[in-house]
Amino acid sequence: MNQIEDLSLKTIRCLVSDLVQQYNGGHPGGAMGMAAIGIALWKYILKYNPKNANWFNRDRFVLSNGHTCLFQYVFLHLVGYESFTMNQLKKYHAPEVSQCAGHPEIEFEGIEVTTGPLGQGIANAVGLAIASKNLAANYNKPDLDLVDNKIYCMVGDACIQEGVGLEAISLAGHLGLDNLIVIYDNNQITCDGSVDLANSEDINAKFMAQKWHVLTVDDGSFDLRSILAAIEQAKSVKGSPILINIRTIIGVDTNVANNAKAHGAAYGVEEGRRLKALYGFDPDQFIEVPKLVYDFFREGNEGAISKGVFHQEQWEKKLEAYSKKYPQLYEEVVSRINGKLPTDWKESLPHSLPTDATASRKASGLVFTPLAAKYPQFLVGTADLSPSVNLLWPHKKDFQNPEIKTDCGINGDYSGRYLHYGIREHAMCAISNGISAYSKGAFIPITSSFFMFYLYSAPAVRMGALQNLQVIHVATHDSIGTGEDGPTHQPIALASFYRSLPNCLYVRPADNEEVAGAWELAIETTNKPTIISLSRQNLKQYPGITDRNKVKFGAYVLKEFDSSSDSQKLQIISVGAESQFAIDAAEILIESNINVKIISFPCQRLFECQSTEYKRSVLDPQIVTVAIEAYASNGWERYANAGFHLNEFGISLPGKNAYEHFGFNGAYIASKIQKYLDDLQKDDIMKFEYQELNITKNHHSSS
Amino acid sequence: MNQIEDLSLKTIRCLVSDLVQQYNGGHPGGAMGMAAIGIALWKYILKYNPKNANWFNRDRFVLSNGHTCLFQYVFLHLVGYESFTMNQLKKYHAPEVSQCAGHPEIEFEGIEVTTGPLGQGIANAVGLAIASKNLAANYNKPDLDLVDNKIYCMVGDACIQEGVGLEAISLAGHLGLDNLIVIYDNNQITCDGSVDLANSEDINAKFMAQKWHVLTVDDGSFDLRSILAAIEQAKSVKGSPILINIRTIIGVDTNVANNAKAHGAAYGVEEGRRLKALYGFDPDQFIEVPKLVYDFFREGNEGAISKGVFHQEQWEKKLEAYSKKYPQLYEEVVSRINGKLPTDWKESLPHSLPTDATASRKASGLVFTPLAAKYPQFLVGTADLSPSVNLLWPHKKDFQNPEIKTDCGINGDYSGRYLHYGIREHAMCAISNGISAYSKGAFIPITSSFFMFYLYSAPAVRMGALQNLQVIHVATHDSIGTGEDGPTHQPIALASFYRSLPNCLYVRPADNEEVAGAWELAIETTNKPTIISLSRQNLKQYPGITDRNKVKFGAYVLKEFDSSSDSQKLQIISVGAESQFAIDAAEILIESNINVKIISFPCQRLFECQSTEYKRSVLDPQIVTVAIEAYASNGWERYANAGFHLNEFGISLPGKNAYEHFGFNGAYIASKIQKYLDDLQKDDIMKFEYQELNITKNHHSSS
Repeated sequence: MNQIEDLSLKTIRCLVSDLVQQYNGGHPGGAMGMAAIGIALWKYILKYNPKNANWFNRDRFVLSNGHTCLFQYVFLHLVGYESFTMNQLKKYHAPEVSQCAGHPEIEFEGIEVTTGPLGQGIANAVGLAIASKNLAANYNKPDLDLVDNKIYCMVGDACIQEGVGLEAISLAGHLGLDNLIVIYDNNQITCDGSVDLANSEDINAKFMAQKWHVLTVDDGSFDLRSILAAIEQAKSVKGSPILINIRTIIGVDTNVANNAKAHGAAYGVEEGRRLKALYGFDPDQFIEVPKLVYDFFREGNEGAISKGVFHQEQWEKKLEAYSKKYPQLYEEVVSRINGKLPTDWKESLPHSLPTDATASRKASGLVFTPLAAKYPQFLVGTADLSPSVNLLWPHKKDFQNPEIKTDCGINGDYSGRYLHYGIREHAMCAISNGISAYSKGAFIPITSSFFMFYLYSAPAVRMGALQNLQVIHVATHDSIGTGEDGPTHQPIALASFYRSLPNCLYVRPADNEEVAGAWELAIETTNKPTIISLSRQNLKQYPGITDRNKVKFGAYVLKEFDSSSDSQKLQIISVGAESQFAIDAAEILIESNINVKIISFPCQRLFECQSTEYKRSVLDPQIVTVAIEAYASNGWERYANAGFHLNEFGISLPGKNAYEHFGFNGAYIASKIQKYLDDLQKDDIMKFEYQELNITKNHHSSS
Repeated sequence: MNQIEDLSLKTIRCLVSDLVQQYNGGHPGGAMGMAAIGIALWKYILKYNPKNANWFNRDRFVLSNGHTCLFQYVFLHLVGYESFTMNQLKKYHAPEVSQCAGHPEIEFEGIEVTTGPLGQGIANAVGLAIASKNLAANYNKPDLDLVDNKIYCMVGDACIQEGVGLEAISLAGHLGLDNLIVIYDNNQITCDGSVDLANSEDINAKFMAQKWHVLTVDDGSFDLRSILAAIEQAKSVKGSPILINIRTIIGVDTNVANNAKAHGAAYGVEEGRRLKALYGFDPDQFIEVPKLVYDFFREGNEGAISKGVFHQEQWEKKLEAYSKKYPQLYEEVVSRINGKLPTDWKESLPHSLPTDATASRKASGLVFTPLAAKYPQFLVGTADLSPSVNLLWPHKKDFQNPEIKTDCGINGDYSGRYLHYGIREHAMCAISNGISAYSKGAFIPITSSFFMFYLYSAPAVRMGALQNLQVIHVATHDSIGTGEDGPTHQPIALASFYRSLPNCLYVRPADNEEVAGAWELAIETTNKPTIISLSRQNLKQYPGITDRNKVKFGAYVLKEFDSSSDSQKLQIISVGAESQFAIDAAEILIESNINVKIISFPCQRLFECQSTEYKRSVLDPQIVTVAIEAYASNGWERYANAGFHLNEFGISLPGKNAYEHFGFNGAYIASKIQKYLDDLQKDDIMKFEYQELNITKNHHSSS
């Protein structure tokens, strides 16, 4: 390490220490231990432009161990990102809103993805690497490599213990993503103490068994040259992702070095003074970054700002040459960079759909696959349910490791856009967040599985919502109608989660027409994830009644009140696959001289976004309303006075029989509603208490 | 293979084929491919008693690839479990309720755990192995091994791709659980086709890197002797769990052998006929199990029934000898077998708790750790958050691999009851299900992490609820009060899921007294999981007002209406950590001459279990009610007309400031409620529409 590197290292550690000390809280130890790695990355390795954080061909950096965020903030500051001024840094843990949040947040320039829940970041990084490989395979030319960036990801122990990380690691090895360089901050310490309290595997051997190339650095806290050598070597590896296992010291050079106490607390004013004195700074002052250090990182010929401009200019020259040599592809590349689908994309949607009973998962395929075939933005994946989720299109090509020639005759190629994620639902969704985050709108990733397994991936779907990332989740087999697989596969409570999740659309279309509407809105909604929730079983169709153009309102009227009638009024809410039961029941009640309005209700959150006027026009709050859905009732109480729901686990029976078993048929529901209306006459409090009309025997002693 | 084994093998395959064919659905291929493994297990290896399925020292068998359930059902039938008569087998996929569900269900004798969502079973098996090791370490004596069973687990490709499985595998290797034998049905096929579409790792090397002992069998579909030799060898391995990687052929001997089509569908009547003819059976009849096969498995001296009685008798003799030699320990063992805590356990609870501001996570430790110290039933674990969750007790001993001597001076020992799960929340909860399932009440497993990370483990908590398993989940940092860690760590939607989840109690105590009540009911509730949801931050105490004995009602009155007053009545619902804001607001409104009743509402599900009379006594449905909680509103609409909630993601600020930022303070809430009451006078529809009183600026553009 030369003098300026040494000065930088010491400055950074003291800065981290002081920033944590000022409000007596935060995570100093990792950031201090990793400081030399940061110098390697931001000074010597990463290609980026601090003055244009979103330059398309930049290297991506992901801090998967997000609690060490000061590591990232300090370097982004040193190299000149304007989001991270010293003033902002000093708001870390302050009692005011700041860009230096407790974990890195995607909103701020220089941060590629929000990390924090451990294991997500490394999966996001795999997604970024997939995105880059796919773009490169589709657009690079032998003489013009438009996309040739690398993805760097720091991980701590947690990211390689968490299941989502392990799934992503395995897939990355399979895919041979040699543009992915993962740096393991191996400090042997977790919150509970020594790592070997809970983990004693041979990490390197484990990665190698998963087709990773593994490099090691023994002294990652000080030996900058070895770190640089390892990263340079990693950059030249072909055909495998690379793990650089770097031994560091958490809280290095403090009295809690190598101790769990170094992880998540300030070390005390005295210890901060001691460290500053040891490193030759004034112990009584908040550390001031020496001008030499700023010059080293930011200013001057070799600083990040001029290098950033240079990198971007070089690339823009390439792009210019590309535009001349490959004008048609160039246009496509530009549309990807600008993140827009051609405005006429809707013309590829089928205008008419089958009117005979159709499974909505099948309708979904009919609606979407023409788009998938046509627009390179769609990167479609499945967690090993290709035969069930209906997302295959003619001549689709897999995104596959070029070195893999499968038994079934596949020749790997990164230009494909169908991704077999394996039985890894959680990683699939976290990786898709990374693909989406690569560059806004360059990709619209699609995931697919049974709806029940979106509980496995819920933490990733949530992170997508938090980050305003467009990912479309195709969730089939979405009710007890899934049938024989039984209660383990039948969602009851899951919709309550997704309906409560901020910035997430959970859409349950009732029939083919609403499926088309669901896809339209999912594609148009570029700032959040959408879950399209689909049936395994055939659903009755309501052509001319359902309306694809109204799905986006969340709820709309399928059948108005009979204005000529004086009879008792009732509103019935019908939802998704259970719409047929609701509509059957409504018809029976109309026969019995009840004046029924039917409301199709595919998406609660979208309905909440409508005006009070619209909402009241759909759902008159003063008229008795019954909601029908084979899920837990939670949430429907907002719209209805009573409901026919399922507040217990499902059962292994053929779908039709499972519905029957729990009373889901029009006649039974109608009889229960009729009784409820009668009871309302007798007990005037009932209207104010949500009434569960479907009290069945309890088959699993679940209450 | 001898003649009778060969006949059995053929019979079993044809039986599986016919059972799937009869209703034209199910999963035949795996069960057929694994048949020889089943013969090895149920005929030669497993120790069990078909006439007493719950014999304490039986070997446990877990079918982690639960879709191959016919495998298990057929063998349980052949060896004589009464739950699985031929009549029951023939109900597989029938349109009537049956014990032969689409995945194995714990309710039925012979099934140790319900499996289906892939990866759960192998984690459950790790839990069973931990339970067995812990009992053995505490009760076995050099001359008397009371607990010496083995845990066998079948897995398919999915279980070793899914994150929860990978977490559990890593931990099992760390713990050196040599009583765990995992058999990998390596058929190289998944739903999408060849495994190498999505996975190409070196499985054996990967397990070895995780300290597993690995054995292989090349021809698992026919070579029974090699299977037996491998399992026998596995039984003698010391210090490592064992993977037996057995190459099998899915749908063996059919025209879809080695093909994804063999996985999840009937093969057609013709193919069934062909197989029966090939195997020497009448192609035109549903296969009848030859008497020779029943004799081989079930009847006769070497049959399972007499062997089962023998095993159990041998063990009972041991127990008898134990009772004489170790009478005190014997008593404890019997209480474990009977699954009961001593009746006086509540006496160990502290009767008085601090009355100054206390974090409820701290109160939880004060309440629970005296019990943890005293009763061996409690096996307490944490996903690497020991310093945060407050579950350590003086002189606690870790459950740790005896071969591990850690740097921090720990000498491993299986008799300990504190388990460092590592940063593996999902496996922690799935493993705890296995510990709980070992023998009802023998263990009460405790898990702990931040509440937000119970989203990672939600699939396992759900499986515990489905199986009526008692596990207590200690979920701290349960609100935006968690503070600086920011939105990634602040739960908003998660409670909606757990409140909707059948057979699960989600309890948010308001103060120390309610924390005591929450622990009491969690321990008393032996047929479901309980999540105790706790604050990071200090909470105001309400001694003499809150009541530990009323938590079990789900909701109760903290302060009644002033019966002498004529003023406008209002009910306020206060919940958990936000109770202080609700109560502050109520006091301000009372000052303004509103007649306020305050209702503490720690658990919605428990309240739903109360009588209508009780419910109405707590919450008058005709009086305007406002609920206050810093979560998404979904679900509170059942009890309130308006709410002060948080329907967007949180923010990185110190806890107090995060609350302030979103309007959570008594005065602001009171002002919003006052305005709402005023508005109600103007707009008579408003009472029928749930009103969100906390419409804040949207900080994350999340809507």
